[in-house]
Amino acid sequence: MAPGRAIAYARRHRPRFLRELKEFIRFPSVSSQPRNAADVKSCAAWLGGHLRRLGLESVRIVPTRGHPVVYGAWQRARGRPTVLVYGHYDVVPPDPLEAWHTPPFEPSVRGQDVFGRGACDDKGQLFTHLKALESYLMTGRVLPVNVKCVFEGEEEMDSPNFAAFVAGGKRALRADIAVMSDTRMLAPDRPAITYAERGNLRLAGEVEGPRQDLHSGIFGGALQNPLQALCEMLASLHDANGRIDIPGFYDAVRPWSEQERDYMARTGPSNEQILKDAGVEKGWGERGYSLYERTTLRPALTLNGLSAGYQGAGVKAIIPSRALAKLSIRLVPDQTPDEIGHLVRDHIARISPPAVRTNVRLLSAANPSLVNRNHPAMRAAAFAYRKGFGASPVFLRSGGTIPVVDTIQKTLGIPTVLMGFALPGDHIHGPNEKFHLPNFYNGIATSIWFLAAIGAQGRRTQHTQAKAEVSAADGD
Amino acid sequence: MAPGRAIAYARRHRPRFLRELKEFIRFPSVSSQPRNAADVKSCAAWLGGHLRRLGLESVRIVPTRGHPVVYGAWQRARGRPTVLVYGHYDVVPPDPLEAWHTPPFEPSVRGQDVFGRGACDDKGQLFTHLKALESYLMTGRVLPVNVKCVFEGEEEMDSPNFAAFVAGGKRALRADIAVMSDTRMLAPDRPAITYAERGNLRLAGEVEGPRQDLHSGIFGGALQNPLQALCEMLASLHDANGRIDIPGFYDAVRPWSEQERDYMARTGPSNEQILKDAGVEKGWGERGYSLYERTTLRPALTLNGLSAGYQGAGVKAIIPSRALAKLSIRLVPDQTPDEIGHLVRDHIARISPPAVRTNVRLLSAANPSLVNRNHPAMRAAAFAYRKGFGASPVFLRSGGTIPVVDTIQKTLGIPTVLMGFALPGDHIHGPNEKFHLPNFYNGIATSIWFLAAIGAQGRRTQHTQAKAEVSAADGD
Repeated sequence: MAPGRAIAYARRHRPRFLRELKEFIRFPSVSSQPRNAADVKSCAAWLGGHLRRLGLESVRIVPTRGHPVVYGAWQRARGRPTVLVYGHYDVVPPDPLEAWHTPPFEPSVRGQDVFGRGACDDKGQLFTHLKALESYLMTGRVLPVNVKCVFEGEEEMDSPNFAAFVAGGKRALRADIAVMSDTRMLAPDRPAITYAERGNLRLAGEVEGPRQDLHSGIFGGALQNPLQALCEMLASLHDANGRIDIPGFYDAVRPWSEQERDYMARTGPSNEQILKDAGVEKGWGERGYSLYERTTLRPALTLNGLSAGYQGAGVKAIIPSRALAKLSIRLVPDQTPDEIGHLVRDHIARISPPAVRTNVRLLSAANPSLVNRNHPAMRAAAFAYRKGFGASPVFLRSGGTIPVVDTIQKTLGIPTVLMGFALPGDHIHGPNEKFHLPNFYNGIATSIWFLAAIGAQGRRTQHTQAKAEVSAADGD
Repeated sequence: MAPGRAIAYARRHRPRFLRELKEFIRFPSVSSQPRNAADVKSCAAWLGGHLRRLGLESVRIVPTRGHPVVYGAWQRARGRPTVLVYGHYDVVPPDPLEAWHTPPFEPSVRGQDVFGRGACDDKGQLFTHLKALESYLMTGRVLPVNVKCVFEGEEEMDSPNFAAFVAGGKRALRADIAVMSDTRMLAPDRPAITYAERGNLRLAGEVEGPRQDLHSGIFGGALQNPLQALCEMLASLHDANGRIDIPGFYDAVRPWSEQERDYMARTGPSNEQILKDAGVEKGWGERGYSLYERTTLRPALTLNGLSAGYQGAGVKAIIPSRALAKLSIRLVPDQTPDEIGHLVRDHIARISPPAVRTNVRLLSAANPSLVNRNHPAMRAAAFAYRKGFGASPVFLRSGGTIPVVDTIQKTLGIPTVLMGFALPGDHIHGPNEKFHLPNFYNGIATSIWFLAAIGAQGRRTQHTQAKAEVSAADGD
């Protein structure tokens, strides 16, 4: 089945596709905020309706212990492979609100970009696949493959209920490969396929001292200050060389061959590019590694926030009674959240000063993941990018975390093709998040070509998944 | 003039005095919060009206560049000394609100205490003097001394406009001694007169990194985190012995004689008492000094608050773009806020890591102060406590700061008698602030006796002020 008609349809309907995407962005589906629970629900209902309208079948809003999963399928391509299309319709909180040039949930187009929370992560990218499916179904009434769409509402919370959802629907979700667009390209003309993601261990560390805030004049100098104790502990977690200074922390970190590091140096972003993407002048971190390696091959411990004492206008002379920090540790093969969690908690317990109480809470955990670069589905994706963007993709590692890739690998035994359409300057998770419209449209074409290529591979696709952990390093 | 009738009047009118105090507490006169500006103003107006009703003359609400000063006088005691009664009607913010058992601005009596923000600091203590004046004026229509009342509305902001007010009204404010009740006793039966206060230098330190929050997965490990940089700098400000680790910081700290330290050990609170007052089990701080010395004789650097990154519910995977800390440095003779401010700023500039920008802002500054323990007015105060509380006061140093004492000394050339009625457990500046009612009533009696004793000393009072800095150490 040649995708010519689908491609033409998609091109013709771009203005409507954009209008629909803006409708999708308008829902403030912030999964981590209890006050947005109803918005998340409305967003799921809207998405379900949309799946139905474009011709998917068995559409269901599947409840979980948290936010629902939106499911839809099309399974009439007898003898053809089945593609699991994963995406997420939830978003991270929009604050700091004052930093947005236009309101985060009132999408607006400026130049070649559509701005709004979730425009890129992941509503816009998810939408490329829906519009590809629609382009087939509205022109030829058939798809070149079987498709099962699974759209989660808790990805930005590290998917606390998704593993249970997949485990519970193991048979219904059976597929040959999964595809997901929630990663980045290097530039509009430099597409990329992500084959590795770091894991993530999110922790909250709290230090408690006096039962209530005390007058810093009367007691200052004689009592351990919980905020100072927390600063001291956090400061001690890195050494002067940018390494994480927790005994045993690097023991399970996999060393990589020179061949793999050479491949990364050839294909990955340069130090300059990463600094430019971040908008900062100087790098920082572990000696002996490029910035690309520091953010992908190597683990990282990042303080995400700290809250203690008086934070209002003016001043207040107190010794705060408590101090709370949130931090995330990005993990790499073969570190596990369990082992690292224990190491960190034991370490903090050892260094906590005697006059305060320190408590470390686990907020969420996700394993690192790795996909074989030589899998046929990866080759199909590379082919699709050449057609959709006119350029061959590079294979990239990402420093981010998509716990779902590990879940799908472990539970369904299939690899996930991470076919990203985000640009480094799209400000995902930050103010003024945007999606580049040429990437939206080329992404739709790429998805159309990808489905065609997978369909053409026939059942071969499912038989060639090798042990990703072994062969990723041998790729290229 | 024997104070017998005034004493009897004060005893008879206790229930009304308490009702009036509760009325006073009801104003949320939080000086540091712009949104409470109107409340501060209403509170000043109420206080002015109260001064008029109890018989003071020349009552005025004097505008400043900030909140007004409430003034009232009675100057018909020809040939008698003049006492400047200082107090402040502003309060610190009530947060954390959820920690209060009853709302901070709805005063309520439980047991022998009245609870509410400002109940003790300083509305309740200020009120003791007003009720003493009333008790004289309503029974004999005269006072044993001349009186000038000056009630400030910005004490909790370190009195940014009070020095200018005093300098501008130097002649009108001429007096022989000042009295102020904004300090503590050791226990309801152990009164105290404070003869030393620490100075205070309040600073805000801000670290700025990327222009906006960045995704901690994509960039974590390769960029300097402003929050981590701030924690590292703050952690480095103390050494392992609890000393402040800023070069030159202790250079101007006055050494004290064994005689003075012995006096303090005999009269001041024990380590155990200070820990009990704070509600904590273990002390902390500079080796070689008792907790009482650490909080009075020795300077202290306290982190009052820190705000950075995501602080809402759940998690958000960011490298925060900035981090802000507030800290206060309590100073002792002969440190000056100017010199120490320079030292700290230079030090922070030296240790700030290269990949972030660090900025230290001065929020307010106040000198340490010291009053001669042998001044006749101090003896009059000791006598008044014996009559009012039935016990001799000890002379104490305080770790807190009342910039006004230094202002009054420097501008008017008179000493301030710090006749405190607060208890260590009154939670000033914390949730559930309270004032002990027996202290309120005995405080009124003490003020009545104090005015009588000063009156009896005649003009002697004004001639005996020695250089406090020299003689404080020779006291006892």
